[in-house]
Amino acid sequence: MQLISGGVCAAQGFRANGIHCGIRKNRTKRDLALIVSDIPANAAAVYTTNLVKGAPLTVTKQHLADGRAQAVICNSGNANTCNANGIEIAEQMSALTAQALGISPADVVVASTGVIGQPLDITPIQAGIPILAQGLSIDNGRAAAEAIMTTDLAVKEVAVQFTLGGKTCTLGGIAKGSGMIHPNMATMLVFLTTDAAISAPMLQKALSGDIANTFNMLSIDGDTSTNDMVTILANGMAGNPEITAEEADFAVFMKALNTVTVQLCREIAGDGEGATKLLECIVTGAEQLDTAKTVAKSVICSSLLKAAMFGADANWGRVLCAIGYSGAPVDISRVSVAFRSVKGTVWVCENGAGIPFSEETAKEILLEKEIEILVELGNGPHSATAWGCDLTYDYVKINGDYRT
Amino acid sequence: MQLISGGVCAAQGFRANGIHCGIRKNRTKRDLALIVSDIPANAAAVYTTNLVKGAPLTVTKQHLADGRAQAVICNSGNANTCNANGIEIAEQMSALTAQALGISPADVVVASTGVIGQPLDITPIQAGIPILAQGLSIDNGRAAAEAIMTTDLAVKEVAVQFTLGGKTCTLGGIAKGSGMIHPNMATMLVFLTTDAAISAPMLQKALSGDIANTFNMLSIDGDTSTNDMVTILANGMAGNPEITAEEADFAVFMKALNTVTVQLCREIAGDGEGATKLLECIVTGAEQLDTAKTVAKSVICSSLLKAAMFGADANWGRVLCAIGYSGAPVDISRVSVAFRSVKGTVWVCENGAGIPFSEETAKEILLEKEIEILVELGNGPHSATAWGCDLTYDYVKINGDYRT
Repeated sequence: MQLISGGVCAAQGFRANGIHCGIRKNRTKRDLALIVSDIPANAAAVYTTNLVKGAPLTVTKQHLADGRAQAVICNSGNANTCNANGIEIAEQMSALTAQALGISPADVVVASTGVIGQPLDITPIQAGIPILAQGLSIDNGRAAAEAIMTTDLAVKEVAVQFTLGGKTCTLGGIAKGSGMIHPNMATMLVFLTTDAAISAPMLQKALSGDIANTFNMLSIDGDTSTNDMVTILANGMAGNPEITAEEADFAVFMKALNTVTVQLCREIAGDGEGATKLLECIVTGAEQLDTAKTVAKSVICSSLLKAAMFGADANWGRVLCAIGYSGAPVDISRVSVAFRSVKGTVWVCENGAGIPFSEETAKEILLEKEIEILVELGNGPHSATAWGCDLTYDYVKINGDYRT
Repeated sequence: MQLISGGVCAAQGFRANGIHCGIRKNRTKRDLALIVSDIPANAAAVYTTNLVKGAPLTVTKQHLADGRAQAVICNSGNANTCNANGIEIAEQMSALTAQALGISPADVVVASTGVIGQPLDITPIQAGIPILAQGLSIDNGRAAAEAIMTTDLAVKEVAVQFTLGGKTCTLGGIAKGSGMIHPNMATMLVFLTTDAAISAPMLQKALSGDIANTFNMLSIDGDTSTNDMVTILANGMAGNPEITAEEADFAVFMKALNTVTVQLCREIAGDGEGATKLLECIVTGAEQLDTAKTVAKSVICSSLLKAAMFGADANWGRVLCAIGYSGAPVDISRVSVAFRSVKGTVWVCENGAGIPFSEETAKEILLEKEIEILVELGNGPHSATAWGCDLTYDYVKINGDYRT
C-alpha cells in the first residue's frame, strides 16, 4: 500500500479534463470537469442527508440505480439547486456528455457546486462539453481537480497503489470542499476511481462503510451542504479476481480506500474556508464507538475552540465544554486533554480539571499548521478521529459576500 | 403590562450592588455583583444541560432545593469550573455572603462567569463582599448588571409592570451573555426578581415553561456554556393573592415574565460577541411546534448565513440549506423565505425556488441593525422565533485570544 502521485487518472483506463466554459466570470478559473472510464465501470455513491438536495443528485441517483457508470460531469460556480428547472438542466448535462462520449446518459454521474438558487444556464456547458471531451487525457486529471474547486485554495488529489490477487491496483480521487461542510454525510464533492475489480454491491458497501469514519467526521463550519456527493467508479482493468464478498481482498480494498479518503479529509479540512490550521481531534478511551465519534465531532465543531486555535490559545476549557454538551455519556472527572503538533505535546487537563502547564510551550505547539487535540476519556477501548479547521477572519470575509 | 426602566431592583424590596473586587486586572470593570431581597423569597432556577457544570451551579442547586432564597452573589472574570476546589470556593462565596447579610448560606444563589479551568482565588471576593453588602441600594441595580458582564458591550436590564388581584406588581431582570450561547438550555446568566406573590412550584413551572420559547431559542455561536443559569426570586411584597395554580393570574404572570425574557433575549443576541446585527428567525406555517422551533434554531445557527448577514448579502440559499439539514420534516417545495427590517420586506424564495428580487432593495434591508428572516413552511398553524446575531471578524478576534 503506497501513496503515489496523481488523482482521478492514476488508475488504469481513466482520463479526465477540466476547462473554463464560461459559468464563472473569471476566465482563469476552470468551471467544468469530466472524468471518463475507457470501459463501463461499477459505481457507487453516497449523498447528502440535507432535505434540500441539488437537482444533480436526483439525476445521479437514478443513473446509478443499476450500479454502473462510465463518466462524471461536474461544474463549479453554480449548485443547480433550488431552481425550478434544475432537473431538466442536470438531465441536459448528462445527455450532452453522453452524446460527446458516445455512451448512454444513464451512465453519466452529474454534479454541480456553487451558489444555491440561481438558474444554471446550459449554454456555456453545451458549448464546453465537446471541447472538454476532446481534451480528455491522463495528464488532465489535475485540470479536472481544478475545475471542481469553488473557494478551495488547494487542488486536492490523492492516489494509492496496492495489490489484489497478485495484480497491482490503483485507487485515486479528487475532492472539492471548503465551506458548508458538516458530518451528516459525505462532504462536498469527492470523485474516486479505481481499476480494481469489485462488484457494485461490494463497492457500495466499501464506500458507505468508509465514509462513516472519514467524510462524516469532517466539519468546516457545521453547515451540511445540499450538494454533497461522493462517487466511486471501479472499471476492473487491473485484472484482479472480482471482489464479491467480505473476504481478505475486500479488507485490502477498504484499506486502500481509507488511505485515500483520510488524506482527502485532511486536505479538505486544512483548506477549509479561511483556515490557517488543520485540526484533528483524536478521542480515545471511549466505552462505545459512538461516544468517541460524537465527542470528536463536537470538539471539532466548536466555534469557540476553533477561534482559540486560530489565536494559538490553549483554551482547553472550551474542549471540556464541547465534550460536555456533545450529548455523549462521558464521565467528565476521567477526561484528560492535550494539544499536540510537530513541536511536541502539552497536557492541559487531567481528570476533568486543569493542571499546570507552560503557556510558552503550549503557544509554540499551537502556532503550527497542524494541531491534534487529544481527548482521553479513560473509560474504554474505543477511539475516533474528526477533522476540522480554525475559525478565522477570512472565513467571515469569504462568506460575508460569497455571491458577488 | 408595560415596560418600565430599571432591572433587578425595579420590584419592591430588592436592592443590589456591583463592585470591582480584584478578580479582573482591569480596575474599571466591576467583577462582583450582589442582589438581595429584603425578605426571604420563593425561588426557581434553570441550569445548563452541559455535562460539564460549573461548581456554582452544583451549590446553587442544593441551596434552591427548598424553593427559597434571599440573595444572589455572582462574580465575573472566572467561571469557577473544572477546578479541583470549585465547590469549596462556591460554598465559601455563599458563606461569606450569608455572613455579611445575616442570612443562611442555604438562601444564597451563587454564580460565576468567565474563563473555565483557572482556579478562582477567594481573597478578593472575601475582601469585596462586605463592601458590596454595605453599598446595597435600589440605584445600584445597574452596577450589579455591569458586574456580571464579560465580553458584553451593553448592560442588559429590563423590567415590566402588571396587575395581579388589583395590586401593581413588577418583574425585572438583568442578563449577561455574549458568547458560548446555544439553545440547549437557558443562556449564560439571567437573574430575575419580582414582588409578585407566587408559590415556589408555580414559579418553577413559569420559568421552565417560558425558557423553552425564549432562552432556549437563542444562539450566538452554537456553544452551550457550562455555567448557564437563570434564576428568579419572588418576594411577594406586592401583596397580591399568592398564585398557586394555573389560573388567570398565572397567565398574567407568564406574560410579564415572557415580556422581560424576550427583551433580554433580543438584547443578548444583539450584543453577541462581535455582532453588528440582531437576527430574528420567525418560522410560520409548521405542522408541529417542534418543527417550527427546530427550523428557526437551525437557521439562526448557520455560520454561513450569519456571515452572509454580516455582509448584508441576501444569500437565501443558505436559509434553505439550513432548513434542509435541520432534521425537521419539512416539505421544501412549500417553503417561502423573506428578509425584513425597518426598511421593508423582500421575498426571495417561493415554493422552494428562487424568485426574482431587487438586490438593491435586499441590500438596503439587510444593512439595518435588526434583521428578521421570515420562513413560511406552508404546512400548518405553528410558529416559533429564534434569536441570534451575525458572524463577524470581531467574533473571531474576541475568541482568538480570550484568556489574555
